[in-house]
Formats: sequence, C-alpha cells, structure tokens
Amino acid sequence: MNSYCTATYRCYDENADFGKKAAGIAVGLTVGSWTDLPEAKKASMQPYLGQVVDVAESRNELGERYADIRIAYPDVNFSRDIPALLVTVFGKLSMDGRIKLMDLHFSDPFLSAFSGPKFGMEGVRSLLGVHDRPLLMSIFKSVIGHDLPALREQFYKQALGGVDLIKDDEILFENPLTPLEKRVKVCMEAAKQAEETTGQKLLYAVNLTGPTSKLAEQAVKAVSLGANALLFNVLSYGFDTLRELSAHPDITVPIAAHPALAGAYYPSPYHGISASVLLGKLMRLAGADLVLFPSPYGSVVMPKEENMAIRHALLTDQPRDYLHSSGNDGEPHAGRLTLAKSFPVPSAGIHPGLVPLILRDFGQEVVVNAGGGVHGHPMGTEAGGRAFRQAIQAALSGVPLRDYASEHEELHAAIEAWGVRE
Amino acid sequence: MNSYCTATYRCYDENADFGKKAAGIAVGLTVGSWTDLPEAKKASMQPYLGQVVDVAESRNELGERYADIRIAYPDVNFSRDIPALLVTVFGKLSMDGRIKLMDLHFSDPFLSAFSGPKFGMEGVRSLLGVHDRPLLMSIFKSVIGHDLPALREQFYKQALGGVDLIKDDEILFENPLTPLEKRVKVCMEAAKQAEETTGQKLLYAVNLTGPTSKLAEQAVKAVSLGANALLFNVLSYGFDTLRELSAHPDITVPIAAHPALAGAYYPSPYHGISASVLLGKLMRLAGADLVLFPSPYGSVVMPKEENMAIRHALLTDQPRDYLHSSGNDGEPHAGRLTLAKSFPVPSAGIHPGLVPLILRDFGQEVVVNAGGGVHGHPMGTEAGGRAFRQAIQAALSGVPLRDYASEHEELHAAIEAWGVRE
Repeated sequence: MNSYCTATYRCYDENADFGKKAAGIAVGLTVGSWTDLPEAKKASMQPYLGQVVDVAESRNELGERYADIRIAYPDVNFSRDIPALLVTVFGKLSMDGRIKLMDLHFSDPFLSAFSGPKFGMEGVRSLLGVHDRPLLMSIFKSVIGHDLPALREQFYKQALGGVDLIKDDEILFENPLTPLEKRVKVCMEAAKQAEETTGQKLLYAVNLTGPTSKLAEQAVKAVSLGANALLFNVLSYGFDTLRELSAHPDITVPIAAHPALAGAYYPSPYHGISASVLLGKLMRLAGADLVLFPSPYGSVVMPKEENMAIRHALLTDQPRDYLHSSGNDGEPHAGRLTLAKSFPVPSAGIHPGLVPLILRDFGQEVVVNAGGGVHGHPMGTEAGGRAFRQAIQAALSGVPLRDYASEHEELHAAIEAWGVRE
Repeated sequence: MNSYCTATYRCYDENADFGKKAAGIAVGLTVGSWTDLPEAKKASMQPYLGQVVDVAESRNELGERYADIRIAYPDVNFSRDIPALLVTVFGKLSMDGRIKLMDLHFSDPFLSAFSGPKFGMEGVRSLLGVHDRPLLMSIFKSVIGHDLPALREQFYKQALGGVDLIKDDEILFENPLTPLEKRVKVCMEAAKQAEETTGQKLLYAVNLTGPTSKLAEQAVKAVSLGANALLFNVLSYGFDTLRELSAHPDITVPIAAHPALAGAYYPSPYHGISASVLLGKLMRLAGADLVLFPSPYGSVVMPKEENMAIRHALLTDQPRDYLHSSGNDGEPHAGRLTLAKSFPVPSAGIHPGLVPLILRDFGQEVVVNAGGGVHGHPMGTEAGGRAFRQAIQAALSGVPLRDYASEHEELHAAIEAWGVRE
C-alpha cells in the first residue's frame, strides 16, 4: 500500500511546458529516470515514482506566467523526519529557477512519526487557568547590557499589568550579566511576587540558546530552576531540533517558536518557502506550542491572507491525502491523525487599539503580543498591560474601545497615544 | 576592549532615509533604545551599542533605489555560535521589508571559537595522495528503489573510471534496500576492488541522515564500518550541527556539505542570504571540508560572480576587522586567525567539455563533480570517468580538448555528445 506526501510549488516561467516540468520533477526527485527503463523495471520501480497530482497555469497581477504544480512523493523514499522531507521535495529543486514551495501535505504514515505540540493551545490555557479570552503576552523592552535587578524590574512591571506570558528577547544569549541560571530564578520570583497582587498565573518563556547538542540539557536545567516555558529560535537550529526538544520527556513546559530568520525564506513570490508552511505546518508538526509570526497590523508587515494561512495551519487539521493508497481500498479510513493546535501569536507593532481587529481575524484563539505597546504606554509598563487587558475585555463584550475607554484610564491613554483601528 | 562582528545588508526602498534606517538597525538590534537614555546610562551602554560602519546608496540596473548598509555588532551581545550571530544580525531584520544579508565579517574573538574544517582542501588531498590536479567527484545516477547489488555495480563502474570521490545522492535516506550499514560495507568493498585496477584511492561520502541528536552516533558508526567521508545536508539541520559534527573527535573523515535547500535563501535580490555567506563563509566556519554549490556552467545556474564569491569565501581569509578594538591599541596584532580552506565543488550540468572553463575560473583548487556527465557517457559510466580525467589532463597541459581528444576515445565521445566550451 503506497502513501504519499505532497508538495505544491509555484513556478514562474514565460515559456516552459509546465506539464513537462512537473513530470520532470516527479521523476527527477524520485527514481531519477523513467521513460528509458525497461517495462519489467518500471513495474518494480513504480512504488518509488513521484506522481504529478495537478498543474494549474495562470498569470499574476503583473502578467507573469506561472503554474501551481502539485507533486506526490512516495513515503517509502524518505525517512519520517522533516529534514528528509524538505531535502526530498525542495533540496535540489529550490535552486532550479523561479520556484517557491507553497504547501506541504503530510500522509498519515508520515504524520504518525510526530507527536506534535506537547501542550498545544489547550494545554497552555490549562497551565494558566484561562479559557475564556485571548491571552496576553509581553516582551522585555530592552535586555542587552542590563543587569539582573533591571531585568527583574522590567519583568515585575509587566507581570503586574496582567499579562499571561512574558518572553525573553530572542537576541538574549548566555551573558555574564543575566545568565539563564540567574535570570530564571530572579524572574520567576518576580512572577510569584506579582501573582500575590494580580492573583494570576504567568508563564515566562526563557530563551533557549547555545550549542545544538546541549539544548536539551539546557532546557531541562531551565525547567529544574523553575522556568515554566521556553522560547526557541527554531530556524537557526532546524525543525528537527525543535521536534526533539518538544518530544523530550523531561522538558515539561510549553515551547514558543520565534520566527527569527523567517524573512530569509517567505517574502519573495519567486523563491523560498511560504509563511504558512514555514511558520504554520512545519512549526506545528515539529511541536511548537505557541508560534510567533509577523502580524499584518503593525510595523513588520505580512499580508493578511498569509497570516490567515498560518492561522489555519496552526489551528485546523489538514484535509485527507490527495493520493490515497493504491492497495485494496474502499474501506472507511480509521480516525484521522491529528496534532494538538499551536497557539498563534501575531507579533510586532501591536497596541491596544488593534485588539478588536486581532480578535475579528483570530477569534479567541490568539495570543495578543506586544512590546512597545506595553512599555511605551504613557502611564508606564504596568498600565500598558492593563490597557491591553481592558481592550480585550471590551472587544469580547462587543463594546467599542472608545466607549470602554471612557471608564478605563489606561485604555484611554493608550488610545490617545496610538489610536484605534476597528 | 570591544570587538565586533559586522553584517552588510542590501536594503531596497524608494523613499527611505537610509542613514536613519542604518542607525535604527544599529540601536534596535542591540541596546533597543539610545537617544532617550540619560547620559550616564549611555556611557555604561556604549559597549553594547551597534555601530553604523557604512551606508552606500545606489540604484540597480532596473533603476531601483537601494543602500548597502554595514553594521558592527558588539561581540559581547551574543554567544560565539552561528545561531546566535544569525539571530542577532538577521533574526527580526529578515522580516523587515526588502532586505538581504549580503556579507558577514567575523571578529577574531568570535572566530577563535571555531576550529573550522578538520581536513580542509589540503587534508582531503593528503587522504587521496593527489596534490597536482583538480579532483574528480561523481554522483550515483539513481539510487531510490535500487538494491545493494545495483548500487554496488554503479559504484564500481564509477570507481573504475578514475574518480577521486563518489558521493551518495542527497535524497538517499535510511531505507530497507540500502541502509547505511550495508551500503558502506558494499561500496567500500567495491572501492577496494577498483583500487586493485586503478591503483587509486577513493573517498566515499555517505549521506548522513536521521534525527539530529543521533547524527554524531550515526557518523561514528559509518566511520567504524569503513566510510571514509560523509555527505551532509547542512541547511536542513542548521550550521551549528555541522560544526558539532566537524569538531567531534571520533568523526575522523572529511565532511562534504550539500547545498540542498540553499535556493530557498539566496536567489532573490531583495530577500534572503547571499550565496557567498550561506555556501561560503558559514559553511567554512562550520567546518565543511568540501562544499557543493550550483555551478554557473550547467543546468542549475548561479551567476558567475556569485560563484566566484563563494570560491573566495572558501579559499581566502577575510580581511581584518572593520572596527578595531577601542582599547589601548596601536600594538601590532598577533598572527591572523585562519581556518583551513574548504574545497569548492561547483556542481550540476557538468560535462568534460566544461573542464577548461572550470579550471580557468577555479584553478586547481576545485573538485570537478558530475552525475549525468559521467553516467550519460555514450560508452558508459566507466568511460565517463575517464573522459573527465582526460579533460583535466588536457586542460592542465594547456592542450585544447579537441586536440587531446583525437588520441583519447572517451574524451572524443564525450565531446561528440556534449561539445566543448573553452
């Protein structure tokens, strides 16, 4: 019984015979040659042969000619890991002209090798005891060159504002001023102290860095020191490293995937890997409990439809296989394999005035994430967090922000500073 | 005493104030804020502040406005590893509009954390006992769906043709037909058998695949089974994994870095990471003994100047720091830190008629690498290897290929099939 993972490419070429191009990919990236094989050999090689599923030709808004080409790759050809899949479907091909990897579809047998997010969206909610509203995350304002007391103070002020998660800056590495060992201790103390005031739990995602082979050990150390979440720059280490960390039995906290370096892959229409594959499907497959990505609202802009495609990849299950088994089928399939959902965290340039927009696009299945929108609040960091919580409450209640702000001074001040987009 | 690694970006924007943009990067990716700091705080934060080294504005051939911006990042801000450097200089920034990472310069302190290629070009030559000519590498024709005897036969024919290295296909993963354990044994036997005829040593680069944390173990196993080289899909695992493998004391064979997935990064002028950084500087820094990359001659085309930039990065030493120490300088510097050279392997679409061109561009510091140009030879695989060796001999002797071919039938047949570009 054959099973296949499929890859969809967008391939630009003014003159190519796209059908021929597709056939060339299906053969070239699997058995290598086909038409010149003897018939008997073809029979034995058939299970290893890639299949052209679809070729759809079109032109973009600039009049450039392209085709969306979908190829099915037999699972027998590669081991059940992300490096093998990516090298198979886009290793050599990535360098072959104007071609972008737009989508991936994982077969059930391939999927079965992955356990996905250990906590996922629901698990993160359970840890925090918050099930009825979007979560709120904040980012340190600046960390490099600051000592432990300064870091603690920043942390404490954020925590007092009522945020659910605080993440390290992704550019904070091991350093003499705030090494992980001391940072976790100090920040978790500040979290506890704030909890006495807010009555609210908080996750601190500490940045996991260093040599690849020491990451698991470092993560376990962080957990043993009290860290209750991790931040990880996935793309600088590879998806398989995230998968291993996520599957590690002693790493008993959620992992938030940072999109650092993602812009090296997704923005070009002609090259690279689409955002929904890179920051959506592969992050979830590899086990990210939360995934940060550039929002369409703020300073680092990603088009809205790409954001929604990421959201879809993180939250919904993929459709059934494009190519079914060629064996004795007709049997109803067993229950679809699914992975836990990854929490979407659209980031960058977020202020309280954007919250209704975020909730319209993401519903409650979102973490509102802000840095400048918290620390830059006219009344300070703590008020910044409160303004966001107020904005979330208003949006959930269907009350226009400006109305709600008339009785909430923090939200009022935020709107004065940054406005509202509803 | 401060030291800095520098990054050069090409940033496209029709209207931007590039000087302001550069200053924003230098502050934003280091201390976070600057102008609003009190003077006393500025003094203490100065060592952590990024520096704008250069901003050079221009327009490309399409009339688009861009600037090459060079920023120096204090080494104190990041740990001495490639993930930390990349996340610092291009993590968030990669997603910030039309910006491409064009170049990196490593400070001496940063470089000092890397041992570089364990063998390098000279080490590979010594293993083979060949110092007076370019090397010749060949690739299996097709591997997927083939059993061990078929693989052995392909290997043996390539070896008989006089190639110096044979590499696995990068899409050959663990599989029931030709698992690494059996593949290494069978191929190394074939190599030994061929050596009895050719009198020539041969390196077999076996593809290192599987879960990240098992790669070192798998490599050591391959070596213990007799493998005398490894092939590694670096970009699917991350540069730091290559560094760890290269530095591993029990992995006592050269590592050839495959460029699979590189096309997701380098081809766009507006986004990604340049080929010379990706396949040049970082591969060498991480310890690749040989680096494959798309040649400018054949089917998967990379512009000539990018190829030459990769060559330069693999073979020559970087200039001294752009920003020197701010301490009590004036002392002559100690000997420059250098890494062993990585052997350049321009690949794809190579046939014997291209050899003079390759040697003109790369001199003897090159591995001529062919797949179809060996196996597709009209007289067969073995003759294919011989034709390449003859072409190399002709080019080294300064004899035009067509003249040399008049007395060498394999080269003659190759030229009949594919022509000559001199």
